[in-house]
Amino acid sequence: MGVSTGLDDGNAGEALSSYLRTQATAFLRGLGLRGDDEDTADALLRGSARRIAGVLHTYGVLTDPAWAEPMRTELGWLGATLGREPQYAVRLGRLLDALRRLSVLAPAEEALPAAVALPQGADGGAGAEPAGGARRSAGAAVAARGTVPAQSAGPLAVGAARAAALLERQLTLARTRAHSATLQAMGSARFHALADSIALLASEVPLTARAAEPADQVLPPLAGQAHTRLAEAAGTLPLRRAGHPYNAEAVQAALGADLTADLQDAPWHQVRILLRLSRYAAEVPGAGGHGDPRLAEAALVLQRHHEAAESAAAVAAAARTPRIAPATAYALGVLHADQRHEVEAARFAFSRLWQS
Amino acid sequence: MGVSTGLDDGNAGEALSSYLRTQATAFLRGLGLRGDDEDTADALLRGSARRIAGVLHTYGVLTDPAWAEPMRTELGWLGATLGREPQYAVRLGRLLDALRRLSVLAPAEEALPAAVALPQGADGGAGAEPAGGARRSAGAAVAARGTVPAQSAGPLAVGAARAAALLERQLTLARTRAHSATLQAMGSARFHALADSIALLASEVPLTARAAEPADQVLPPLAGQAHTRLAEAAGTLPLRRAGHPYNAEAVQAALGADLTADLQDAPWHQVRILLRLSRYAAEVPGAGGHGDPRLAEAALVLQRHHEAAESAAAVAAAARTPRIAPATAYALGVLHADQRHEVEAARFAFSRLWQS
Repeated sequence: MGVSTGLDDGNAGEALSSYLRTQATAFLRGLGLRGDDEDTADALLRGSARRIAGVLHTYGVLTDPAWAEPMRTELGWLGATLGREPQYAVRLGRLLDALRRLSVLAPAEEALPAAVALPQGADGGAGAEPAGGARRSAGAAVAARGTVPAQSAGPLAVGAARAAALLERQLTLARTRAHSATLQAMGSARFHALADSIALLASEVPLTARAAEPADQVLPPLAGQAHTRLAEAAGTLPLRRAGHPYNAEAVQAALGADLTADLQDAPWHQVRILLRLSRYAAEVPGAGGHGDPRLAEAALVLQRHHEAAESAAAVAAAARTPRIAPATAYALGVLHADQRHEVEAARFAFSRLWQS
Repeated sequence: MGVSTGLDDGNAGEALSSYLRTQATAFLRGLGLRGDDEDTADALLRGSARRIAGVLHTYGVLTDPAWAEPMRTELGWLGATLGREPQYAVRLGRLLDALRRLSVLAPAEEALPAAVALPQGADGGAGAEPAGGARRSAGAAVAARGTVPAQSAGPLAVGAARAAALLERQLTLARTRAHSATLQAMGSARFHALADSIALLASEVPLTARAAEPADQVLPPLAGQAHTRLAEAAGTLPLRRAGHPYNAEAVQAALGADLTADLQDAPWHQVRILLRLSRYAAEVPGAGGHGDPRLAEAALVLQRHHEAAESAAAVAAAARTPRIAPATAYALGVLHADQRHEVEAARFAFSRLWQS
């Protein structure tokens, strides 16, 4: 088997090996960057580990399973270990942003009504309450200053600030622990053995007889199967309901049984993973991937779905902290529902995208 | 001025008097029903009081202002007084329904994912958490029983039950007080004077010179002005933003300054009142009302907007109750955000409807 650069003419094994080589190089580059640029290093390590595991799954018939299966297990372990720290960082950022957004006034120009004279007695319901005009002119003075920071916003905002502090404490602690776990993992014999296996991808991939067949005959059907699995899973999602804005479906999980969110979210998370597998499969040269732009966008939307769902779960966990103040709990409740609405918004976006 | 039944040929004063007579009859019928059928009675009394006040405003140039202005003030007082009790009832029903919806699992057939085999290691992030399959099969057993009542749903549902009890206590108390206020008002000299004035509408309405002009020349422009006021006020609403689903605009009020909700909601409430005035104006025979079906639908949507906004405010008020448990406060936070999302959903619906 000589080295071929004309991929369309080569066999399937060469195409797969070429892709795995590229990923192995990225992995080793990531390893070399650790200590200098942690973020880039981690992104390279995680990205290549995921891709190698993904194509070894999709193109499983081309490689020796006795080699590929344990390799995928180890890659899964590494990806999960490395992924935890950035996930906590993203989650905390998302939740603090949301709390900030929830505690601040809308921009003045949109919130201020035009002056329209209202007759007395026209609204049967508002008689005993302060008149709309009086409320609005008091409000106008506030709105004229633009946006108002949380601290001037009364008792609810105190809860928001405390909720932010609580989440920051809990998620920073989780992040620190994840960081230690990553450092420990990277120093382990298990990691070194995996890194050695990945380094070997650059030179030798144990291929099956099937891999000797022409790439353009073997790869496209396998990539097609990955896409079919994705399409089938997406087809079982409640897309019609999700395509109705404000169906209030996802927020049910905010006060529902602990399993409600898992039950609701699992099929969407599954589609997210199948989407990723399908995209990686298409990256292998000769697989016939023509880069449907919908897939990249759908992947972002489902990533948002996943982050919002995990963030909502983190809020629910924080709300179980003993001895929190009612104002803090209240803010966490608002935040939880907000994140579940982000979940719903992502489902809506996916539904529109997928059905277009 | 003889009595004319050919309305298109009659003058404006006759058309207005005819409409006011109909409303006065409904009012007196409502009075007669009190004691037997309170709900129908109150609906008749409120509906006719609102309509009389509304057309006296829109067609103000046709009646003696020295008579009409105090009449409208009294009608406003009565409408507000009578409206409070049913509003508390609607509010409580809406909030208990929402809590029930938020505490219950989604229907099993939609929530259960199809079985799709997932490769190991494909999801870099899920490694340390329970596998999706295990979670789902545990959930499937729950979902197979259909929906699960709140009491089996863990600590969050305890908060939901307590929040429901708190809201029920507070809103029932408010309702009882409103009921007493209504009874007191109905027995007052002020009410009897108003009822006498309304009874007189059946026979004599103090008209101006303008009222002697032909109905088809006078009424349509005045009804048109009411519609123009509505269209102008609706035109100042942030309809474009509201037309984007999941803009998360209305929920900002959930943790924002106390004025945030008022600032945001006031222009919508204003449009709701102008819409009502425009509809009543069109009911007067000869006013040229051709019953745009959008208006009736828009009125329902803005009614929903109003109820959701007032319900959210009631939840915020309940959350300020001293010494509530954190779980209760958390459930109230979720409920508050949910109702603010209902506000947003109503704005979305109105935006689509109005711009269509």
